[in-house]
Amino acid sequence: MKAPAALDRPPSAGPMNGAESLIRTLVGGGVDVCFANPGTSEMHFVAALDRVPAMHCILALFEGVCTGAADGYARMADRPAATLLHLGPGFANGMANLHNASKANTPLVNVVGDHATYHRAYDSPLTSDVEGIARPYSNWLRTSKSATDVSGDAATAIAAARRAPGHIATLILPANTAWSAAGDIAEVEPDERRAIVADAAVERAALLLRSGPAAIIVAGPALREGPLATAGRIATLTGAKIYAPYGMARAERGAGRVPFERVPFSLDGALAMFAQMRSIILVGATAPVAFFAYPGRPSVLTPDDCTVHVLSRPDEDGVAALEALAERLGARTSAPGFAPALAPASPQGPITLPGIAAVVAAAIPQHAIVVDESQTSGRAIMTTSIGSAPHDYICNTGGSIGYALPVAVGAAVACPDRPVLCLEADGSGMYTLQALWTIARENLNVTTVIMANRKYQVLIGESKNVGAGGVEALGPRALDMLEIGRPNLDWVALANGMGVPGERVTTLDAFAAALQRDLREPGPALIEVVV
Amino acid sequence: MKAPAALDRPPSAGPMNGAESLIRTLVGGGVDVCFANPGTSEMHFVAALDRVPAMHCILALFEGVCTGAADGYARMADRPAATLLHLGPGFANGMANLHNASKANTPLVNVVGDHATYHRAYDSPLTSDVEGIARPYSNWLRTSKSATDVSGDAATAIAAARRAPGHIATLILPANTAWSAAGDIAEVEPDERRAIVADAAVERAALLLRSGPAAIIVAGPALREGPLATAGRIATLTGAKIYAPYGMARAERGAGRVPFERVPFSLDGALAMFAQMRSIILVGATAPVAFFAYPGRPSVLTPDDCTVHVLSRPDEDGVAALEALAERLGARTSAPGFAPALAPASPQGPITLPGIAAVVAAAIPQHAIVVDESQTSGRAIMTTSIGSAPHDYICNTGGSIGYALPVAVGAAVACPDRPVLCLEADGSGMYTLQALWTIARENLNVTTVIMANRKYQVLIGESKNVGAGGVEALGPRALDMLEIGRPNLDWVALANGMGVPGERVTTLDAFAAALQRDLREPGPALIEVVV
Repeated sequence: MKAPAALDRPPSAGPMNGAESLIRTLVGGGVDVCFANPGTSEMHFVAALDRVPAMHCILALFEGVCTGAADGYARMADRPAATLLHLGPGFANGMANLHNASKANTPLVNVVGDHATYHRAYDSPLTSDVEGIARPYSNWLRTSKSATDVSGDAATAIAAARRAPGHIATLILPANTAWSAAGDIAEVEPDERRAIVADAAVERAALLLRSGPAAIIVAGPALREGPLATAGRIATLTGAKIYAPYGMARAERGAGRVPFERVPFSLDGALAMFAQMRSIILVGATAPVAFFAYPGRPSVLTPDDCTVHVLSRPDEDGVAALEALAERLGARTSAPGFAPALAPASPQGPITLPGIAAVVAAAIPQHAIVVDESQTSGRAIMTTSIGSAPHDYICNTGGSIGYALPVAVGAAVACPDRPVLCLEADGSGMYTLQALWTIARENLNVTTVIMANRKYQVLIGESKNVGAGGVEALGPRALDMLEIGRPNLDWVALANGMGVPGERVTTLDAFAAALQRDLREPGPALIEVVV
Repeated sequence: MKAPAALDRPPSAGPMNGAESLIRTLVGGGVDVCFANPGTSEMHFVAALDRVPAMHCILALFEGVCTGAADGYARMADRPAATLLHLGPGFANGMANLHNASKANTPLVNVVGDHATYHRAYDSPLTSDVEGIARPYSNWLRTSKSATDVSGDAATAIAAARRAPGHIATLILPANTAWSAAGDIAEVEPDERRAIVADAAVERAALLLRSGPAAIIVAGPALREGPLATAGRIATLTGAKIYAPYGMARAERGAGRVPFERVPFSLDGALAMFAQMRSIILVGATAPVAFFAYPGRPSVLTPDDCTVHVLSRPDEDGVAALEALAERLGARTSAPGFAPALAPASPQGPITLPGIAAVVAAAIPQHAIVVDESQTSGRAIMTTSIGSAPHDYICNTGGSIGYALPVAVGAAVACPDRPVLCLEADGSGMYTLQALWTIARENLNVTTVIMANRKYQVLIGESKNVGAGGVEALGPRALDMLEIGRPNLDWVALANGMGVPGERVTTLDAFAAALQRDLREPGPALIEVVV
């Protein structure tokens, strides 16, 4: 964290306003990227950007892009970005991706402009209950009372965001607290270490792992290469299986790393996965439950006689807990089973879902970041890519769709030297397609693949699952609500309209050629795969 | 309102589920249009659409389109539409346009699916505080407790939405209340008449109008042709001037109707407008205040010695109040000053803002519905179109941008025999561009004009107004946040990508030709005007 003195503000510059004190406090606290969609009440923040060049501010054309990008940034940078949003409606537009960020335990600082404190009483058109709107997705929430409070409030917000396992902090900045004279910038309290789990929790985990079929579900920072290797050693010794939640925030995987299975979306698949387990060890994960309820079916994925044991809570040090567990089991020197490199393949011919998975798995470059929202069309990709070149894999943690394009923006900003592969579906992609413009504007190295099946395909299955009837039982008016191919979306035109070059492919050969080319060349590209 | 018996459900059909009882209650209560973006928890609602053909359900690819369309529908149909939204994040995506709807006093019924009641405790990924998220924009809010409660809850929701002046009602439907066996459908209480204003309020208004320069600010249903004629008679007799709020929900205007001025967005313009007024009479309007606060400038637009008098509150009968006032003043037989028909004009040559206004004013067809979110590029359109062919004019009531394309969808659904002209700016249009797809899908008679100045132009002025510096004082990094032309958006490509034919024009002649053609021909079209 930079000391305030390093921020290079000449004493001759006169008093700062609140907005400048905020930006300097953010930068001093290690928050030097901001995804912004400003309005009138944020103009002093915007104007101050030229006085604080250390703040990297990136414009998006819709707030859902800002919040998703901040989520993606933090998942890859391991530190929060800020967003800059315009009053209650601006925050509201960003909420769906804050939902996903909250389920990912992402640290994130929202800065929300509001009317001047004295102006609120007049109920002018944009007056809104900003605190009420922000509350459901703000673990920490404060409205600055005066310009001299702003820097202290901002420092507290940053500390709150960074507190393990990561939180959403929202600072509301009335316009007059931005434009009035501020005090000094504030320093952020250093982070506390994550809590070390109790010996008893390690002991109990060891006992359970020794006494029958067991699963270890790993989430959070323990899904990185090092702790997964530790989990792998434990698995080799005990025969336990390693899983990650369906909605994992970020995992390091690929050839030469310890593989894990993802808990499937499908209820039957998930139930079968855990049916024989006598115990489940949770490392930063929550107990596995069904994504949705289905009539007469269970909400809990584990058998009644299966013990679910918390080795580490999301806010505890799961990495140290795995090491302590390996030590306790005598597994420190066991050999983890690493994933072998993928056998070369060049799938050809008509587009099929296994073919898509094979093309993607073969094309993932070394150190790539894969952001996956490919929905039903991409169900086979994770399994097929176990032996791909080592990469990071990012999933939708909260199930609110339209997350991948914005998260890809943030991941690319956090890691400018790594290629980003965004696997998107046509239905979910339409929620936040404005992200393509920011990708073009920032010339981000993001290759987007749109899997266009021209349906809300997942809902056709879900309709059957909830007892409303599958595709054969639904009438034409119901099916029309799940059909997005009337008219077809032309994703090449949509991408071009926002400055991203695009190509449509209808064979696996063409897909493979386009994907390999786009991942090799820097800068943005989009491929529409007609499924 | 249709009686339940008219809903044609054979007794042999067996018990309804909650979702079907909801749809039948909605239809019975006069809510027979629903703008939907469903998910798993809404599948029983979707499946029931084939059993209740009277419900017209329209798909949108983003929830902000659903809520905006429901707003536009009710503004034109004078009755609520429903939305169908998916849990907390789905509601959140629709909130910005609910903000605008709430400021328009639009009646609207949101149906929000949630997890089954027993599933919520498991905190699965999409679990959210739906009530907490919905509360800030729900005047009425309830979660159905069981399937047998659903129809009664829905009937109460409809009545709450329709209560004057119009409210947002949100009914949350846990999945098990949708799929379980329901009771009978419920009837909606008939609406109460709007309250008649007290004689004293009329008497006081008459006194003020007789005693010096006065303004009448008209909003709500009093902005229709009949009551405006009454206001015109009063104005002729007393010399009062007639105004509408900057954010008027809907006004009937054009040649042969009583003209009014719109309170401008600009603070200086608004202050000058009221500077000489000794009294302001509010008819369904709120006292005029500045859109934003500016340092050292007033929030209230009227002079200190100006009396602001409420003739009718938004929930009272402003139409009757105007008639009573005319009677009291002896103005029943005065001749209102009607707007003369616009002189023919055919502006040519390079694009200018007055030229755009002239082209639009000349092209507005008889009975058109104009939805205006043209921002700075369209500031002259309202003034220029005072004598256009008679039409309805719809504005952004809440200042949350991205309202016009969705509202145009709803207006076109409400009035399929009337052309809709959507005047949109490039910046605001990008918030909810997904509406173009619904326009194409439903083959709506909407002509969209995108005024592409490739900037957040309004913010350049606002930056100066708030003291952050105008275009000459802002640095390059600040200006870059107000610049959306890097890269340029290609609106023709974006429209084509969603199935809407488009054309780019760079001269006024070409604009006039394209606009006249597109307004004459049925179905969707888009014109990008490069400003």
